[in-house]
Parts: sequence; C-alpha cells; structure tokens
Amino acid sequence: KVNSARLWNSLMEMARIGATAKGGVCRLALTDEDKAGRDLFIKWCEEAGCTITIDRIGNIFARRAGRNNALPPIITGSHLDSQPTGGRFDGVYGVLAGLEVIRTLNDLNYTTEAPVEVAVWTNEEGSRFAPAMVASGVFCGVFDLDYGLSRADLDGKTMGEELARIGYAGEAPVGGRPVGAYFEAHIEQGPILEDEGKTIGVVTDAQGQRWYEITFTGQEAHAGPTPMPRRKDALLGAARVVEAVNRIGLSHAPAACATVGLMQIHPNSRNVIPGQVFFTVDLRHPDDATLAAMDAELRAAVADIASTIGLETALEQIFYYAPVPFEASCVAAVRDGVTKGGFSARDIIAGAGHDACYMARIAPTGMIFIPCVGGISHNEIEDTTPEWAAAGCDVLLHAMLHKANG
Amino acid sequence: KVNSARLWNSLMEMARIGATAKGGVCRLALTDEDKAGRDLFIKWCEEAGCTITIDRIGNIFARRAGRNNALPPIITGSHLDSQPTGGRFDGVYGVLAGLEVIRTLNDLNYTTEAPVEVAVWTNEEGSRFAPAMVASGVFCGVFDLDYGLSRADLDGKTMGEELARIGYAGEAPVGGRPVGAYFEAHIEQGPILEDEGKTIGVVTDAQGQRWYEITFTGQEAHAGPTPMPRRKDALLGAARVVEAVNRIGLSHAPAACATVGLMQIHPNSRNVIPGQVFFTVDLRHPDDATLAAMDAELRAAVADIASTIGLETALEQIFYYAPVPFEASCVAAVRDGVTKGGFSARDIIAGAGHDACYMARIAPTGMIFIPCVGGISHNEIEDTTPEWAAAGCDVLLHAMLHKANG
Ligand SMILES: NC(=O)NCCC(=O)O
Ligand SMILES: NC(=O)NCCC(=O)O
Repeated sequence: KVNSARLWNSLMEMARIGATAKGGVCRLALTDEDKAGRDLFIKWCEEAGCTITIDRIGNIFARRAGRNNALPPIITGSHLDSQPTGGRFDGVYGVLAGLEVIRTLNDLNYTTEAPVEVAVWTNEEGSRFAPAMVASGVFCGVFDLDYGLSRADLDGKTMGEELARIGYAGEAPVGGRPVGAYFEAHIEQGPILEDEGKTIGVVTDAQGQRWYEITFTGQEAHAGPTPMPRRKDALLGAARVVEAVNRIGLSHAPAACATVGLMQIHPNSRNVIPGQVFFTVDLRHPDDATLAAMDAELRAAVADIASTIGLETALEQIFYYAPVPFEASCVAAVRDGVTKGGFSARDIIAGAGHDACYMARIAPTGMIFIPCVGGISHNEIEDTTPEWAAAGCDVLLHAMLHKANG
Repeated sequence: KVNSARLWNSLMEMARIGATAKGGVCRLALTDEDKAGRDLFIKWCEEAGCTITIDRIGNIFARRAGRNNALPPIITGSHLDSQPTGGRFDGVYGVLAGLEVIRTLNDLNYTTEAPVEVAVWTNEEGSRFAPAMVASGVFCGVFDLDYGLSRADLDGKTMGEELARIGYAGEAPVGGRPVGAYFEAHIEQGPILEDEGKTIGVVTDAQGQRWYEITFTGQEAHAGPTPMPRRKDALLGAARVVEAVNRIGLSHAPAACATVGLMQIHPNSRNVIPGQVFFTVDLRHPDDATLAAMDAELRAAVADIASTIGLETALEQIFYYAPVPFEASCVAAVRDGVTKGGFSARDIIAGAGHDACYMARIAPTGMIFIPCVGGISHNEIEDTTPEWAAAGCDVLLHAMLHKANG
C-alpha cells in the first residue's frame, strides 16, 4: 500500500507552482512555471535516490535501479504542463503517483528485478504548442526531433528555443531504447466513473483524434456602410463551422466529441467586418472509420460554408492518431491490481489523448483512471480525492511490480 | 478652387505615419502614431498661421481668425485615428480638406467674417477605445468628461492615461462654446457613389447605431472526454449569435447592417471547450423604430440561445444614437457648392457614424461625401482619387464660406 498522505501532500505542493486564484493551475509548457515544476520533481526524485536523465526534447526520466539493470525499464509517468486554466491533477497525478511508487519501494527496501523509471513528458497538453503529446511522440518515433523542436506557440516561440531558455534542452537522445512496459495513471477527465460510483477505470482503449487548423479569408470592410449582400464575413463563416462541428459531434453520439476551442479574429475591431479568422477543430471517436466519416463531413461543411459566403479557405489536419487498444497483459496487470486492492472498477475508453497512446506503439502499455469530481477537467475547478488518488497509485504499484518482476 | 495637388500630397505625407505593408494605415487612437499624426497636423496649421487649442480630451482646434472674432466659429474637421488595419482617407481626408480650405483662403488673402476652425476629434473610430466618437460626444454634452477619460482599451489603459502619455491632455474645457456651423467632409465608405458614377454625396441623414457587449459564460471542460450533451460551450453560443445577427441584418434589408466584429475566446485552447466568450454587436438602421425592432430581436435571440445551451449572459448596450437628420441650411449650402462646382451628385445617408452626428446636436451641421474605390473602407486597400478629394474640398470651401460670411 502506498502512502496516501505523502502522495496528496506532494500533489498539493506541486499545485502551488502556477496556482491560479480560482484554485487551478496555469503551468503552460516550457514557461518559468513549468521549469519550477520540473525542478521540484527532480529534487524529490534525487532525494528518493533516483538517477535523472533529460533528453533533447526535455523529457525527464528518474530511474530507480533494479537487480538486473540490463533489463529494459518499466516506465510510468505523465506530464507537468497544464492548460492556461488547468487543474491540479491532469498529468501531475500520473507523475507523482510514479514518484510515490518509488518512495513506497524505498520504504519497503524493495528491489525490483528490472529498473523502474518515472517519466515527465514535455508539452503533453498541446495548448501552448500544438499538437498534444509531441515529445512522447518523438520518443516513440511518431515525429522526428526537428519537428518537435520547431513547434511554435502563437507568438512564434519554438519548443527548441524555450527548452534552451529554461535549461531543459538535455543531451540524451530521444527514445530509441527498449522499454519493458509503460503504465500511466491519470484522472478520467470525464464523468463515467463518478456517475457509476467506481474507483478505478481499467483503460482498454483510447479514442482516435484529428486536429485541424482552418483559416477563412474574406474581406475587411466597414460595419456601417457595407450592405449585407456585399459582405465576405470570415467570422460568419467560422461561426457556421462551429455549428457544423457541434452537429457532427451530436450526429455520431454518444461516443463522438467535436470541438472548436481556439479562434483568432482579424482585425478584431467592433466596427470592422472580420476579414480573416483562424480557428481549430478537434474531432474524436473510438472507431477509426467513424472518425474518418467525421473528417469527411467537416471538410464538406467547410467547403460549402466558404463557397456560400465567398471565403478563401486554408484547411490543414495537423494531428491524427487512430484509436489505440492497450496491451492485453498490461490491462490484465491493472485488472489484477484492482482485484488485489478490492476496488470497484469498470473498463473504460480514454477520451483524452495521453502519452501512453504513443508509448503503446513501442512497448506493452496500460492505463489506470481514477474519478474526477463532476467529470470536469481542463478547468481550474478540476478535483479528485486523496482516497481515489491513493487507490490508483496502489493499482499502479501492483501493475509495475508485476511487470518489473515478471 | 482648392489646390488639388497640395491636398493630395498632404494626404500622402500623413499616410506615412503608421503606414502598413499592405498600403494602409495603423494609427490607433492615442498611440505613438496618433501623436505623430497630431504633431504633423499642428505643424502644418501653425505654418498656415492658425492658433492651436487642445482641450482636456485631446481634441485639437486650429483657428483662423475672421473679421469679427466675436462670432461663433464655422468648424470643419474629422479624425486622425484609424482602425488596426485602416485606410489612408477615413477621417484624415476631412481633417486635411479643412486644412486645405485654410491654405486656400491664405492663398487668396481672404478674410472670412466669422473665424473658421479645423477640428481633430480624439478616438472617433471606437476601435481601440469604445464607443466611437467619444470625444466629440463629450464636446457636445452627450457624455461627460470623466466617462470619456475613463474609456479603456482591451489592456485596461484608459484614454486619460494615454492622453497624458502622448502629451495631448490639453487644458481647454471640452465644448461649452457656441459653434456657428459644422461641416465634415469624408469618404463615403460604401459603394453607392462609385456604383452610380457620382462625385459628391450630399449627406442628408446618418443612420442610427446600437453597440453591444455580450459575455457568455458556460463551463470549460476537456474537448475529449466531455460528452456532447453535458457541454456548456460558450463559443457555440457566440457562433449562434453571429448567425442570428446576420439574419437580423438581412431581414431588414436593404438598409440594415448588423455585425459581430470583435470576439475573445477564453481560455482559447485547442482542446478546451470554451468557458467564456466576450463579443460585440453593431446594429445600424436609418429608421429608429426599425433599429429598436432589431434591438428586440437581438435580445430575444441571445436569451433563447443562452437558455438552450445553459449559458449565463451579460448583455450591455454601450452605445446608441438615433438616426440624425442634418440641418436644412447646411445641406442647402453643400448642395449649392455642388451646383457651383458643376459636380455630379446625389443625396445620401451616412452608413458610418461621424463626429458630425454629435455636432448636429449643438450646431447647424452638414456633411459632404466623396466616393471610395470599390466602396471599401476599414481596410488597408481603402482608396479614393485626387480629383474626388479636390471636388469634395471645393464643396467644403464653398459651404464654409457661405456660413462664415452669412
Ligand atoms: N490528458 C490530456 O488532457 N491531454 C491533452 C491532450 C488531449 O487533448 O487529449
Ligand atoms: N467614419 C467611421 O468610420 N467611423 C467609425 C464609427 C463607426 O463605426 O461608424
């Protein structure tokens, strides 16, 4: 059994870094707050006797030696970056649950057969730098390193520049080494576990995602003397796509999700018909064929809306991965941990993307979900409980021991 | 007859201040560029022998003495501030046409009976600071001075602070003095004159306007694991209002205009369902009863959309003025100038707001329009011709002389 109070205290201490007035966290990737979070994590890991490695895209690995260090490590982890108005648990919970596993092994003076590692993946959120999970993607060979380092925020600053600035452009090569197994513990970020009164979600799959960037260009003109029929209003076009995206999501209910989260209006002046609008679309579904149908519907809607208003369109799909089935023996190890701990549980599909989705391509991978209050995440009020956090960590400990000794 | 080349050269020289790559101008109110434009105008006026007065809200008055300086002045003018992606003529034309009238009177060694003045009104555009025409509004007693000075931009900087910063917080009281008549020359900013091949628009009326600020508050949540039916997507609400505003504009065709020009999405992250959206609405119509009907339709649509999605709404009308009829003797003076100059002309209703709309409350007021290419304004490609510019200035000279000697 892990130390519930120690885990919770560490979560609360980390939550002070980038804390917001509404009780959440703003710790965008590669900001000073992200650096402070990383520094604290490394300090704790060194106190726990771990060896630290930082790779060229800023991923951190804290390693606890095993009996046979020639064996590939059993890795767990998640991320410390947050949304602009993020919560205290998204990502952080998985990182600190990993640390708590190591601290518990230290308490027990227990040496695993294979070494174990806790990973902090750079820029998982995909908020400051798109897409999401870019650094675990490089680790797993999904993206090349140059692509990762060249991701730019809305101000044009790149991940490479910002890694150097905060001192986290490490020297280790990114990936290219064998991994025995990978587990990630995370808050569910949705309502299912809490609604059904279950403590643990045994994650069997993750839904697929497609992200888009769309720019509509019309013509700026004066909001007063420009007759309605002569307008080429880029915001009217974007508004119609928002409605279409919502319709696409609803029409593939209940599993589909479809969201416009970001929009920039140009010139953004009260009495100017918007000449250009940049916005993003996020489509998700657990079934790849349905996700492809949603893609086709989006493209058709965008083309139709643009031609009706007379807008030029640039549409780019910037991120895609197919639904991910997690590996049977890892799912079984999680299920086994649930049984041993006597927790209520159900199988669940991850609605969010996780670094585990990419790790599943190079290693046997499983995930553990715990409930979050009201199913709310990517929100400053995001919350979970010390009991749920400890339960997930117990399951993680069990699953990792199973693989590290197996 | 005014000096066409001198007027055009001054327009082109002023257009260098804040010039943009696409041939337009970015000279937002009370920025360093606005200051540079003001400085140049004052230099030119002093060279033309005028006396300069600056009032507490930064309005500039360049006065050319008459024979009887106890008579109230005949004022002309407009504004030097622009939209973020504005053109070279909106506002500037009216200011420099006024200067050209003074220069022409100097050439002729002609002394008017009443003094004449050229006014530069602060923040006419209403883009950096809302609403539009705020400083002529203070001059005319529509707003009080504290209201004017406390208008804040999106970064929270106030007009009062920015006036002090650029050195244009003058000492003269704002308004409260008699005005013999006011004329304003302006580009049409719409397509009618060019479409019909007319050189001058005799402005008989200006349409009424209502501006709104609306904030929708829903709930931020994760774009992945949050089921569509549980969402309170503030951007979906705003998108529906954009569509409703467009429908309101079209349903009161051909005269109505209805625009959403500015929108800010919070937290504006690709994988977060927007929790809050702030946006503006601009409704216009030449008939006040129709404008009131549009207002009612907007409020009903907003309430309906918000309750369907489950959004909290804050809706504030921040600007309203009823349609403005210009004064008969001033309209006649403009018409007379058109006849004398032998210009083709038609009566026209102003689609944009102008400082003349407020001046009409305290003085006999008239306006003169010249065509703009393609009817495009509030756009960097905004254009007119030296011939049109000179024609409007000739009419202005005639109308001012008529009133200054009358
Ligand atoms: N777990 C999580 O919030 N990941 C962000 C990437 C996504 O939007 O799925
Ligand atoms: N003339 C002009 O563009 N004024 C700005 C105020 C308005 O939007 O009508």
